[in-house]
Amino acid sequence: MKKWLSPALLIVTFALSAIAHYTHWNAVAQFLICAISVVFVAGFLGRATESVAHYAGQRLGGFLNATFGNAAELIIAIFLVKEGLYDMVKASLTGSIIGNLLLVLGASLFAGGLKYKVQNFNISLAGLSGSLMIVAVIALFVPAVFLNTHVITDSESDTLSLIVAGTLIVAYIAWLIFSMITHKDYLADVTEQKDQELPHEHAPIWSRNKSIAYLVLATVMVAFVSEWLVGTLEVFTVQFGLSELFVGAFLVAIIGNAAEHSAAILLAMKNKIGASVEIAVGSSLQIALFVAPVLIFVSYFMGNTMNIVFTTIELVAIAVAVFIAKSITQDGSTNWYEGLMLLVVYVLLGVSFFLV
Amino acid sequence: MKKWLSPALLIVTFALSAIAHYTHWNAVAQFLICAISVVFVAGFLGRATESVAHYAGQRLGGFLNATFGNAAELIIAIFLVKEGLYDMVKASLTGSIIGNLLLVLGASLFAGGLKYKVQNFNISLAGLSGSLMIVAVIALFVPAVFLNTHVITDSESDTLSLIVAGTLIVAYIAWLIFSMITHKDYLADVTEQKDQELPHEHAPIWSRNKSIAYLVLATVMVAFVSEWLVGTLEVFTVQFGLSELFVGAFLVAIIGNAAEHSAAILLAMKNKIGASVEIAVGSSLQIALFVAPVLIFVSYFMGNTMNIVFTTIELVAIAVAVFIAKSITQDGSTNWYEGLMLLVVYVLLGVSFFLV
Amino acid sequence: MKKWLSPALLIVTFALSAIAHYTHWNAVAQFLICAISVVFVAGFLGRATESVAHYAGQRLGGFLNATFGNAAELIIAIFLVKEGLYDMVKASLTGSIIGNLLLVLGASLFAGGLKYKVQNFNISLAGLSGSLMIVAVIALFVPAVFLNTHVITDSESDTLSLIVAGTLIVAYIAWLIFSMITHKDYLADVTEQKDQELPHEHAPIWSRNKSIAYLVLATVMVAFVSEWLVGTLEVFTVQFGLSELFVGAFLVAIIGNAAEHSAAILLAMKNKIGASVEIAVGSSLQIALFVAPVLIFVSYFMGNTMNIVFTTIELVAIAVAVFIAKSITQDGSTNWYEGLMLLVVYVLLGVSFFLV
Repeated sequence: MKKWLSPALLIVTFALSAIAHYTHWNAVAQFLICAISVVFVAGFLGRATESVAHYAGQRLGGFLNATFGNAAELIIAIFLVKEGLYDMVKASLTGSIIGNLLLVLGASLFAGGLKYKVQNFNISLAGLSGSLMIVAVIALFVPAVFLNTHVITDSESDTLSLIVAGTLIVAYIAWLIFSMITHKDYLADVTEQKDQELPHEHAPIWSRNKSIAYLVLATVMVAFVSEWLVGTLEVFTVQFGLSELFVGAFLVAIIGNAAEHSAAILLAMKNKIGASVEIAVGSSLQIALFVAPVLIFVSYFMGNTMNIVFTTIELVAIAVAVFIAKSITQDGSTNWYEGLMLLVVYVLLGVSFFLV
Repeated sequence: MKKWLSPALLIVTFALSAIAHYTHWNAVAQFLICAISVVFVAGFLGRATESVAHYAGQRLGGFLNATFGNAAELIIAIFLVKEGLYDMVKASLTGSIIGNLLLVLGASLFAGGLKYKVQNFNISLAGLSGSLMIVAVIALFVPAVFLNTHVITDSESDTLSLIVAGTLIVAYIAWLIFSMITHKDYLADVTEQKDQELPHEHAPIWSRNKSIAYLVLATVMVAFVSEWLVGTLEVFTVQFGLSELFVGAFLVAIIGNAAEHSAAILLAMKNKIGASVEIAVGSSLQIALFVAPVLIFVSYFMGNTMNIVFTTIELVAIAVAVFIAKSITQDGSTNWYEGLMLLVVYVLLGVSFFLV
Repeated sequence: MKKWLSPALLIVTFALSAIAHYTHWNAVAQFLICAISVVFVAGFLGRATESVAHYAGQRLGGFLNATFGNAAELIIAIFLVKEGLYDMVKASLTGSIIGNLLLVLGASLFAGGLKYKVQNFNISLAGLSGSLMIVAVIALFVPAVFLNTHVITDSESDTLSLIVAGTLIVAYIAWLIFSMITHKDYLADVTEQKDQELPHEHAPIWSRNKSIAYLVLATVMVAFVSEWLVGTLEVFTVQFGLSELFVGAFLVAIIGNAAEHSAAILLAMKNKIGASVEIAVGSSLQIALFVAPVLIFVSYFMGNTMNIVFTTIELVAIAVAVFIAKSITQDGSTNWYEGLMLLVVYVLLGVSFFLV
């Protein structure tokens, strides 16, 4: 009985959410049905990611999960860029980076750490990801300092933004070549090797192709449901008088990262912490090194270049998140307290954003 | 003869210091007798800590030493809060953090390193302590940035300070649970394991209960003598025209941390560097994550909430101390040059504070 | 035939460059002949360094290379100090530090990494160098913050600069004692040990004394040619309207570090990455901890003390370079992508300096 219950509930709640959204039910009803639906959809996505990870390895599985998750965010952001809402774009990029590094990673390490005393992942991957996060922070920080301490024309500022964006995209493509091709085995997960020797306890339920198809489908479903959920949230935020910055950087980011979130925690609790880290850290690297630069080029081709300069508090939030995440992941060994520290920093930032 | 000489000198010099203080001898005489007394008291404390560490393990011994040392500081600070001297409280908290991380830790690594080529301690403890120091810096830094870049009401600022303080206390209690209960063995000192296998060269002179009683007694004596010594210093500082910031953050902190100082150096020279690090780093973590937040709540209950926002140079001094201490401790291996680097940074900060 | 061709070309192109410079050929001709000459001279220096490293060990060889390279820079800078051109001195010190940490180190890791999948060097050396770089950043950063947030007399500012400079020189001398005497073997290169066991593939072509003489000679030649090349560059920069900051911090630094540059890359491609890192990191440490402080004392004895306070963007550039270099080197293991990350940061800084 259980076997068909979950798919049935998945489809029914998703369909109800769609109906609620497109037939404009009242906000509370929409919110409730979408919130229920997101749980099932996220669970579906988690299983699909795990199944893909079984065939493709934890790293590629994590990368695919992060990429499909960010694809949704990229699409939403392009619409915002079209309307010239650059501040909201930057707030949501900021929220996505800190949400992945602090909330998703923190919750994964915490949940995984409650079940397993110490969890390990590839230490070289930890070091390289940390360095790459520092590069991303530098790329956002240096232009901000130069533009704040020097008078510069709009055209020079655009040129700077475009060159920085181009350099980051090159760095990201090189990272994919490095991590997926030239040094794939060097970055392989420690637990993965053991997996291949032991007979598998859980053979995956789906075939390889089915797993990939389900991963795409689940990601699209998550994108839709979270989009609808965000829509209802906006009504609430007006009622409760929340600032746009807080909504953009926290509420939208939390729900918008539901895909990464659910998959990463589920994997951590199955002791596949390498895949969790790949999802959380990989997703935030993709936002900083690929999604943000692409949006700058998109804005350029639309005729009004978006500046790469973030506000001071956005920069501080990103820098702080990168610092603590790098400090915690760099030894390739995690435990529940490290997860808690990330969550503490997330709370500190959240309270500060909320009050401002 | 030696056996009773030291206790006798301890008691005589302590008694003379008390008489000098309460019968108001002149400042120079008070200073001299207290300075001599502090040497004996600190030596007593060092032996008591070592003896407790023998029974309780280096980590718990270090923790008890740091806690009793900070208890004295907390009491003094509460009196300052009562009188509303918030700037002096923050200066002395700053001085205590940088004094522990740079002077106490630096002198310990240097002294230990002159005797032993390389000293090792638990690398996981090193990594976690480093991350937790970063969390503490973030907790002080984020509110400062937000309050400096945004207009905010006093009541919002109070709320922010209280929530940050509460979060830090939760993080500190969780740290104690993690390090003393769930992952105690994971953080055990490397040399401790060897100790337990070898027959002990020096059996401790005191029984377990006597050791603990002596540790409490010694800490209380150190607190009193250092308090009296600080009292005489204030007279000197007026004579020599020193700034309050320099006195609070350096002179008071150096003498106020005499307990940690003497015990940490003595343990380092006996190759128990794990206990030294626990005292120095553990003490500064306790100041940042527990003493400072508790003072904010105390001020709140007294009706005038102390803000969590430190001055720019205090923040810079703390951040700089945390950075270099983290960088030096993170490999779990120490030598004399690493101690020297910490002392160099302490000198650089001291000169800057002195001149300003 | 090949055997005498290279020395002949070395001498001929060097002689031609000298003639071009002293008989004032036109700028383009001077530039071309000097640029060709620098290739041969740098190659000569690379071989001499490698030969010295064979006799003296990779670390001492790297140190000698860095020292002779910086001697030239020190001499040029003293002339600038004499003329009171302090801004240009600081720009070229900044350029030299970031050039070594990002361009020289980046190109070495990249070139070495294309040939060898992973290259390793002593992890303790990596950790200590990283910490020492942080100390250097702190020494530049703390006075800048204090002088920016407080009113201070010129005489106090001079005192602060001299004390900081003196402290750094002490720290540098202690570092030489530590790394060359007390802990020489502790910091020995990992590959060096293997070298000593295996029969050498390439016996060095020169005797020990000849190698040292050639190293000195080659360094002097590089200093002259790069000086002449810089002279022609200034003409170009006027034509192309480049800012002095960009020229000082990038063009002059790139050519002025030709010695370190060529030797470091050649060694990396022979899998002697330890010597490469020693050259690049050791050279920038020497600039920050020895050359810069010596210049402050020189300016003091010339009667007009040079301030230790660098501009905001210089400080940011140095801090950023130190951070990413430390992050990348700290695991003692390198690959092509780590080199690329350093080059990316160099490009980001270069573009920013160029546009400002």
